[in-house]
Amino acid sequence: MRQVVMTKPGEIAVEDRADPKIIEATDAIIRLSATCICGSDLWPYRGVQEVHHQVMGHEYVGVVEEVGPEVKTVKVGDFVVGSFWASDNTCDICQAGYQSHCVHRTIMGSIGTQSELARIPLADGTLVATPGQPAADLIPSLLAASDVLGTGWFAAVAAQAGPGKTVAVVGDGAVGLLGILAAKQLGAERIVAFSRHADRQKLAREFGATDIIEERGDEGVAKVKDLTGGLGAHSVIEAVGTQEAMMQAIHSARPGGHVGFVGVSHDVNIPGELLFGTGIHLHGGPAPVRQYLPELIKLIWNRKIDPGKVFDLTLPLDQAAEGYEAMDERRAIKVLLTV
Amino acid sequence: MRQVVMTKPGEIAVEDRADPKIIEATDAIIRLSATCICGSDLWPYRGVQEVHHQVMGHEYVGVVEEVGPEVKTVKVGDFVVGSFWASDNTCDICQAGYQSHCVHRTIMGSIGTQSELARIPLADGTLVATPGQPAADLIPSLLAASDVLGTGWFAAVAAQAGPGKTVAVVGDGAVGLLGILAAKQLGAERIVAFSRHADRQKLAREFGATDIIEERGDEGVAKVKDLTGGLGAHSVIEAVGTQEAMMQAIHSARPGGHVGFVGVSHDVNIPGELLFGTGIHLHGGPAPVRQYLPELIKLIWNRKIDPGKVFDLTLPLDQAAEGYEAMDERRAIKVLLTV
Repeated sequence: MRQVVMTKPGEIAVEDRADPKIIEATDAIIRLSATCICGSDLWPYRGVQEVHHQVMGHEYVGVVEEVGPEVKTVKVGDFVVGSFWASDNTCDICQAGYQSHCVHRTIMGSIGTQSELARIPLADGTLVATPGQPAADLIPSLLAASDVLGTGWFAAVAAQAGPGKTVAVVGDGAVGLLGILAAKQLGAERIVAFSRHADRQKLAREFGATDIIEERGDEGVAKVKDLTGGLGAHSVIEAVGTQEAMMQAIHSARPGGHVGFVGVSHDVNIPGELLFGTGIHLHGGPAPVRQYLPELIKLIWNRKIDPGKVFDLTLPLDQAAEGYEAMDERRAIKVLLTV
Repeated sequence: MRQVVMTKPGEIAVEDRADPKIIEATDAIIRLSATCICGSDLWPYRGVQEVHHQVMGHEYVGVVEEVGPEVKTVKVGDFVVGSFWASDNTCDICQAGYQSHCVHRTIMGSIGTQSELARIPLADGTLVATPGQPAADLIPSLLAASDVLGTGWFAAVAAQAGPGKTVAVVGDGAVGLLGILAAKQLGAERIVAFSRHADRQKLAREFGATDIIEERGDEGVAKVKDLTGGLGAHSVIEAVGTQEAMMQAIHSARPGGHVGFVGVSHDVNIPGELLFGTGIHLHGGPAPVRQYLPELIKLIWNRKIDPGKVFDLTLPLDQAAEGYEAMDERRAIKVLLTV
């Protein structure tokens, strides 16, 4: 099969590799219908994280091709969506809704789903079958559910977005944009997007943003305060992962407010005095996407939401290198790879 | 009137000062029945925080002696308990339950309640009258509600202590001990106290601790994991304020668990990568004691709880210096000053 490999920072190859095989009785093999490039793939691409001939990709939708003898809830031929963490969905941590911290978890990036086929561990716990074979135009949205939508959704839940709330969103990448969509679905009254890019502002408004702030840092915070009677937002989504973004998020929230952070933290340090003084709630980390998949699939299947809009560039798997370049140079918000 | 003053680090005087007067129409003047020394008073006492001829104390119970013309909910002669933050209890932040961040808040420490009389700003928002004049033996517990119990209670709420939960408590000072009492009242199934002092262990057990761990740091964390099937506690209370205590608290919690921190942070830094990776909830700061006062007064009045047990040394106000010494040297958990 063909599979994307990052040979070194900034260098993407598509190689012929052996087809994956069932290893554990709880595994499934899927044939991918589509996969994509994640903002987090840019960290190693830019050399911020070490990488050496690494398989890439952790988002996936496709058709089950083979199942291990213990797999019960999905069968050959099912169209499935799975989280970027494989999880058993039965341990205490999963049952509490934190499948991304499952005691038996496997990160799908270690297997690589920018490929024609992929082995999915713990298939019963990880995969959710759609009600039938999806129409082609639903596939981007179902793929988004695998991570970027699920992550934005978790961020909005962690920020306690809901009726009567003002939600501010730091980061106008695909996760931030889908955090806006999630906040809207969760009933938020007002959604403030921090963005200085016209194309992203447009998508933010389509997804439900009511206000756009172009300023960042202290100036951006001052604008949020202006919009909220001096108090700050009830809920803030942090979808970047830098110190600047985290500080902007914390300072944008009102006392007792909630910050949900899903940007993968890189050299972020949070002063205890700041957290103590602001009195905010802080919660985040790798999103337990599996928790939300049934609900997200239903919303997509019934065409209530269209998160696939974040894919503004589609390329065949063999042109993955061009996809990485486009995202790195911010020419594309998010790249879908057809398989 | 007599009032306690910290002239410099480590030096306590009791001085004659002018009686306080009504300044704002919303003020009340109370005659204190009792006051006390807070663990946080030890930070300036030890020179960690700057101090220069500073009035001291922020915990108080007493009888209303005079009210400003706009005060409506308390009257002369009422026995009252108030929070260590004065708050209007009507602004959006107060209404959301965060009176310690009220937009009109005043920290009572700036007024000083280790004194015979005290001016209480925003009396309607700040003070809660008891159902009648309390029996003498209830006064220590009512005084505890003013801060140390309310703070422990907030920590337990922030940690989401409740039925079916295992709660770990870092810090065996008065706040940590009353966090145990709060967790018990909130229905926690198992309460693990970190403590290496026999007298505090005893009180911890009286308040509801089911397990005691004497180890600290990584060893303490390992013990909590042992007690919880390798997962960690659902809820952790941090009641110290140091880096070591915060790290012990975060690592003691399971993924998706809740850490409630009320130790006043001193040089605490929380790595974003750690928060991201552990997936815990973090919430804390100055406790919105006012939110809990009606409930706490009721529990004390009906003799359901006895938080006054944390006072293991009682001295007259004029001997405040000896009280500070006793707490600094850990000869006393908490010192009550009679007025």
